[in-house]
Amino acid sequence: MRKFTKKKSQKVGLSPGTLTHVGEKKMEKARIRIIDFDQERIEEIEAESVEDCFPFAERPTVTWINIDGLHDVAVIEKIGKHFDVHPLVLEDILNTGQRPKVEEFEHYIYVVLKMFFIDREKVETHAEQLSLILGPNYLISFQERIGDVFEPVRERLRKGKGRVRKSGSDYLGYALLDAVVDNYFGILELFGEKIEGIEEELVSDPTPSTLQTIHALKRELLFMRKSIWPLREAIGSLEHGESDLIREGTRVYLGDVRDHAVQVMDTIETFRDMVSGMLDIYLSSVSNRMNEVMKILTLIATLFIPLSFFAGVYGMNFEFMPELKWRFGYPLFWVVVVSVAVGMGLYFRRRKWI
Amino acid sequence: MRKFTKKKSQKVGLSPGTLTHVGEKKMEKARIRIIDFDQERIEEIEAESVEDCFPFAERPTVTWINIDGLHDVAVIEKIGKHFDVHPLVLEDILNTGQRPKVEEFEHYIYVVLKMFFIDREKVETHAEQLSLILGPNYLISFQERIGDVFEPVRERLRKGKGRVRKSGSDYLGYALLDAVVDNYFGILELFGEKIEGIEEELVSDPTPSTLQTIHALKRELLFMRKSIWPLREAIGSLEHGESDLIREGTRVYLGDVRDHAVQVMDTIETFRDMVSGMLDIYLSSVSNRMNEVMKILTLIATLFIPLSFFAGVYGMNFEFMPELKWRFGYPLFWVVVVSVAVGMGLYFRRRKWI
Amino acid sequence: MRKFTKKKSQKVGLSPGTLTHVGEKKMEKARIRIIDFDQERIEEIEAESVEDCFPFAERPTVTWINIDGLHDVAVIEKIGKHFDVHPLVLEDILNTGQRPKVEEFEHYIYVVLKMFFIDREKVETHAEQLSLILGPNYLISFQERIGDVFEPVRERLRKGKGRVRKSGSDYLGYALLDAVVDNYFGILELFGEKIEGIEEELVSDPTPSTLQTIHALKRELLFMRKSIWPLREAIGSLEHGESDLIREGTRVYLGDVRDHAVQVMDTIETFRDMVSGMLDIYLSSVSNRMNEVMKILTLIATLFIPLSFFAGVYGMNFEFMPELKWRFGYPLFWVVVVSVAVGMGLYFRRRKWI
Amino acid sequence: MRKFTKKKSQKVGLSPGTLTHVGEKKMEKARIRIIDFDQERIEEIEAESVEDCFPFAERPTVTWINIDGLHDVAVIEKIGKHFDVHPLVLEDILNTGQRPKVEEFEHYIYVVLKMFFIDREKVETHAEQLSLILGPNYLISFQERIGDVFEPVRERLRKGKGRVRKSGSDYLGYALLDAVVDNYFGILELFGEKIEGIEEELVSDPTPSTLQTIHALKRELLFMRKSIWPLREAIGSLEHGESDLIREGTRVYLGDVRDHAVQVMDTIETFRDMVSGMLDIYLSSVSNRMNEVMKILTLIATLFIPLSFFAGVYGMNFEFMPELKWRFGYPLFWVVVVSVAVGMGLYFRRRKWI
Amino acid sequence: MRKFTKKKSQKVGLSPGTLTHVGEKKMEKARIRIIDFDQERIEEIEAESVEDCFPFAERPTVTWINIDGLHDVAVIEKIGKHFDVHPLVLEDILNTGQRPKVEEFEHYIYVVLKMFFIDREKVETHAEQLSLILGPNYLISFQERIGDVFEPVRERLRKGKGRVRKSGSDYLGYALLDAVVDNYFGILELFGEKIEGIEEELVSDPTPSTLQTIHALKRELLFMRKSIWPLREAIGSLEHGESDLIREGTRVYLGDVRDHAVQVMDTIETFRDMVSGMLDIYLSSVSNRMNEVMKILTLIATLFIPLSFFAGVYGMNFEFMPELKWRFGYPLFWVVVVSVAVGMGLYFRRRKWI
Repeated sequence: MRKFTKKKSQKVGLSPGTLTHVGEKKMEKARIRIIDFDQERIEEIEAESVEDCFPFAERPTVTWINIDGLHDVAVIEKIGKHFDVHPLVLEDILNTGQRPKVEEFEHYIYVVLKMFFIDREKVETHAEQLSLILGPNYLISFQERIGDVFEPVRERLRKGKGRVRKSGSDYLGYALLDAVVDNYFGILELFGEKIEGIEEELVSDPTPSTLQTIHALKRELLFMRKSIWPLREAIGSLEHGESDLIREGTRVYLGDVRDHAVQVMDTIETFRDMVSGMLDIYLSSVSNRMNEVMKILTLIATLFIPLSFFAGVYGMNFEFMPELKWRFGYPLFWVVVVSVAVGMGLYFRRRKWI
Repeated sequence: MRKFTKKKSQKVGLSPGTLTHVGEKKMEKARIRIIDFDQERIEEIEAESVEDCFPFAERPTVTWINIDGLHDVAVIEKIGKHFDVHPLVLEDILNTGQRPKVEEFEHYIYVVLKMFFIDREKVETHAEQLSLILGPNYLISFQERIGDVFEPVRERLRKGKGRVRKSGSDYLGYALLDAVVDNYFGILELFGEKIEGIEEELVSDPTPSTLQTIHALKRELLFMRKSIWPLREAIGSLEHGESDLIREGTRVYLGDVRDHAVQVMDTIETFRDMVSGMLDIYLSSVSNRMNEVMKILTLIATLFIPLSFFAGVYGMNFEFMPELKWRFGYPLFWVVVVSVAVGMGLYFRRRKWI
Repeated sequence: MRKFTKKKSQKVGLSPGTLTHVGEKKMEKARIRIIDFDQERIEEIEAESVEDCFPFAERPTVTWINIDGLHDVAVIEKIGKHFDVHPLVLEDILNTGQRPKVEEFEHYIYVVLKMFFIDREKVETHAEQLSLILGPNYLISFQERIGDVFEPVRERLRKGKGRVRKSGSDYLGYALLDAVVDNYFGILELFGEKIEGIEEELVSDPTPSTLQTIHALKRELLFMRKSIWPLREAIGSLEHGESDLIREGTRVYLGDVRDHAVQVMDTIETFRDMVSGMLDIYLSSVSNRMNEVMKILTLIATLFIPLSFFAGVYGMNFEFMPELKWRFGYPLFWVVVVSVAVGMGLYFRRRKWI
Repeated sequence: MRKFTKKKSQKVGLSPGTLTHVGEKKMEKARIRIIDFDQERIEEIEAESVEDCFPFAERPTVTWINIDGLHDVAVIEKIGKHFDVHPLVLEDILNTGQRPKVEEFEHYIYVVLKMFFIDREKVETHAEQLSLILGPNYLISFQERIGDVFEPVRERLRKGKGRVRKSGSDYLGYALLDAVVDNYFGILELFGEKIEGIEEELVSDPTPSTLQTIHALKRELLFMRKSIWPLREAIGSLEHGESDLIREGTRVYLGDVRDHAVQVMDTIETFRDMVSGMLDIYLSSVSNRMNEVMKILTLIATLFIPLSFFAGVYGMNFEFMPELKWRFGYPLFWVVVVSVAVGMGLYFRRRKWI
Repeated sequence: MRKFTKKKSQKVGLSPGTLTHVGEKKMEKARIRIIDFDQERIEEIEAESVEDCFPFAERPTVTWINIDGLHDVAVIEKIGKHFDVHPLVLEDILNTGQRPKVEEFEHYIYVVLKMFFIDREKVETHAEQLSLILGPNYLISFQERIGDVFEPVRERLRKGKGRVRKSGSDYLGYALLDAVVDNYFGILELFGEKIEGIEEELVSDPTPSTLQTIHALKRELLFMRKSIWPLREAIGSLEHGESDLIREGTRVYLGDVRDHAVQVMDTIETFRDMVSGMLDIYLSSVSNRMNEVMKILTLIATLFIPLSFFAGVYGMNFEFMPELKWRFGYPLFWVVVVSVAVGMGLYFRRRKWI
């Protein structure tokens, strides 16, 4: 639930541009990591204070400043001041309930989107807000806590593999976006496995808890869809934007990421349709079972209620009941009972009840 | 109900521009409050008559005239005449069934939208229409009654905090819009809590009254959606409008409010999906219970109806029933009964009924 | 039903432009009323023949010719010839199954829309087609029968109240449109009251006839929606059209009517959602009742069927049944019966069935 | 079923432009009829071979060549060659699974759409593909078999009534389109009557066969919608197209046909909504009946099962049952039975079950 | 399941442009076939290594290189290098989870779409990704495995039938697209037959396995829709694109393919509606059956339960029960029983239960 409505109301009444962290406090102290590189050289340090970053950004090399933890407002404020970031952007960075969007400013681009993690023990996915400030030769990324999907990018940077070391901050930004969107596929595969599991359960033994699982899954998809839906448009506006910060050569890569985002949305929509289908199957399997139960009740009742009446008749105490005196009355009774039972059985079989 | 259809029909046949208050009369006498400020100085008075406002508006300072109560048509009329407001706008101010919209005129902008309040005792939300007339150096706000969400803005004005004292009437207008939209998040959080509550109820003990609550919530969301849906477009037209009254620097702030309005709509849509899902859960939990009941009925009936027949047989009064004379007939009867009962029990267990 | 498909087929095969009245014949003889006015003077007559109207239209004053009754094709034809109206327009006037639309011609504008009446005795709303031919200084309105929503406009004309006497035929056209759209609100209020009534019935005592009412209402809304939906666009095209016949000052009034039409559509959509919700409530209240019934059946059956078996056992005629000889066998029987009954009662209570 | 998927696969692998008839073979030999006319004169012949048509098309008069039957590919091929028609168009003419569309070529326009017939004996509607090749002074129409909706147009041509004799081939084309679309209204009226019939059945006596009828109707509407939906756009593109073949004066008539097509779609949508509503009514009336049945079962069972137990008790054979010896035991038994029955009856009445 | 989510995650973290095959490995060794032709001459060889292809592509003739099997990354890489294909395109070729799309580059066009096969033994359709690289005088096609729908195109090439030998690589590309889309119709026909089969089953004997089939079909349609939906737009962008590689004369053919793709989508949508309708029929037929069962239970129970009570009464052992002594007590009992049975029968008949 929490994840659908951030406690934004704590902010109500504050002047716009007043920086307050809105969201869960996910870690103690902000961690600042810097990777500074050009084609020849790469330097990777963990900064003690935010001021340590600034000299790197002055150099002509590409500087990636990564900040884990948003609760330390002072850090964000200092960065905002040094890189001349609009107060509303800083506010958006701190407020973790943003929709994915891209905003172009004169000397930087602001990108915000969601990273997803699966907590494999519980059934829920976790989302974390990722903000990127893309400047001419620096990239600042803000995460809610330590742990991300960028390790492969760092590895490529360290080993000098691929284009990333040879290109500018815009390509680095693309590489991060790509890593995030690629990660969505992993989440979707997990959802796919879950759906497969539920389907087997539906065929073999559907229980009310199956229904709970289906609904939990439906909600997960709902949440994921809400978080990813605006992404396609956002990346598209980046791809076709007019900012000089995105070089021509990078745009085709952004188009590729957009394609992937569209594929993700396609798959989510397909999953939603499948989950709806599973709900239908569950409900009709439940009503099927009910029918089975009712059929058995009806079989037993229609068979024995008339016979019981029959037995009741010969349990009556009328003085003049000639049948009771008959020599073969009792065997005859059984003959009748068995014939009726067999007849009904045949009738039921013909109606395909048994 | 009332809130979906205002008693507009009382107006039918009146000439357009004839001012009549359409809506509930929510207070006795209109209250007029004026806040007049520039960067150095702020003055706050409660005006006796509407004419008291006019001198303030002449000054180069920014003047915020706030009117609580719409039933005093004369007040609205005088303001309309003094500030040269189009009769149709005055009519819209008085008629509290407007959709949110923005209309640009040559020397002022008219904005109308809904404020929401939660009556925490009852389950309903209340909506109130807020109209803004934004002129070059004045802002006139019309509310249906005393009590609003602007106290924090006034506080910032009084303390000279933030940009609001340094900026013009357009920024003040933005600040009010922002306060209204921020307030929506509070309402949504409350809805979120309600949804959480209902979900727990659904799992533990769903009753028909749960259904009532779900439907009430559904309707609240329906109403809120209807009232907020056009707001995004309205703010967007303000943001990208051609009026000189909105300075360049304010537009980025309006973009921020629009983003928030979109987030509100997103959340409402998500809530609507969740409420639909809860309806499904409720219905299937009800039918689940029904199945339980039916199963028990079937168990008891299929077990005892045949046994009753059996007992009925040996209650018959045929003269020649050899079993009745048997020494161990009665114990044998019990043996048969118990075996049948145990056999059925095993059968039911195998079919996973018990 | 009739109202969804006009007997258009009677026209099949006729050459386009052949004038035939398609629709119900709602009155005997066409009635022609003329109101001719300028700022100083107003003249109101009931014309004997259609030719009487023509001299008025020559004058520089504004002339409103109102024709009630469409079956007298000759009248329509003469008007068409005199005012040089396109044959297809005349055909549309006569054929009462039109969608609301606006068509601009060189020297006149054709507007067609629906007026609604509520037959308060029956549950149905009635729709009547209203056609307007708006020329430079005349307005011709065609109605299906006597009785309309324009009396207040006539009153304003007679009394010289408002702008209508001072303005041209375009403003008069606007006044009529406004009267029609305002009237929709009255209809919607009535629907609102009906919905309220049904909701109370749903809570207190839902019967199959409630369902009938809900479906009738649903269909009414369906019909109304179909008739009003294209109106917004039609008025919009009038508002933003290029015709000189609509003066600049009138366009803002048309915008107001369009706003009202949008509000009407909004409310209809909301009502449709509410009616759907009521269907759900009805169905689940029916199934709730069913559950109640089933529960009672199950309670009685599970309680008495085993006890009956028990009584049956001691009604058996085995010779050797020691219990029958016991001194306290019978009281013991009752003790067992009562204990079982009490035990089951407690069990049922624990499962919240009683 | 057949009508949803034409046996297109028989064509798979053929070179585009290879002419093969795809669809049901509906008649033996193609029939070719020619109507050649100008304002003074009209000639109507049935051609033996396709070559007979060509001299007519050379003349300045308007020539309407109508071909009934598509299986004779040679005929189509010769026409295609003589009038220089693109092979893909010929392919489309022969393949009867086209969506309605309009394609403009340099010296002709290709129009394809569906004509509907009702087989009044069976419940199904039949569709036939109509292709029109509209040239400067000729019009070629291709139908699947003899029998069409154009007889009234021919009648008007013969009698020289209306504009059709005075206008060119474009107006003739319009007249045919108009005849087809007008015919749709007839089909819809029939559907309307069917819906009315089903509604009465739903109220009086709904059976499973009612459900079959509803579903058949739903499918008919689905098919009709699919066939007509693209027509509006197609006619619109003809109306606003740039081809010189459509004269200015004809465009307003095409606008009229488009309006009619829109009305047809509106009505189909409304019917679909109504049919959905009828499904709901059917289902709830079925479940209503079920409830009735269950109520009666419950009434009888809850009344007699306890009484049976009571009777069973006094059928027991305990030696010491004092009640059995009482003088008024038996009458007392009846008193108790009747009181219980009356009490339950009152209880049921209070709960509104009987 | 597998087909909805490709194992993309194996790629996570790789640098974009790193070529890895993502998808099922469907064959051992890639097979390379070359068809090289111009109007006079055709040569068809199976190449041993990928380098064998390059000389053909140099010639002015049209060269079609077809590669079956994607797992041999080296082959793709060499082709990419030789024809100067963008790394992202190569990545898309290898990754078999693409949406249909068209991308225009300076000297080639990349087209990707899905081919469908029906595995007639199992119920599922199989999809295979087809990538086309269309250059000025060559066309390279990539398939996942041997076996395709292009045999007729090859036949036409070999026999020199149709336009394909006379036209350039763009027409060949069109011919392949056309073959793929034509093949969709075959798949749809099979779906149509399946639907027909299910419908008969629904009428004659619906079982839970019918439901399984319906749901399987629904999912097939869902998958097919997802794979084909973007195709229309893709072909449209090819048709109206600005690339010189597509000659003017070929565009009209592409328009024809687009039309077919739209028809395919139309049919899929119709099938989806029909499958939904079948679900409704299934559910209501199941509930119908249930009603039948309940009715029989109720008939039997309401008939015999009261009679059993009656019999029970005369099985009581009260000492003073005058009826027991009556001479005609027993016959009278039967008279009453039979009358009650007949009365109830008549009552049930009047309520149309039997």
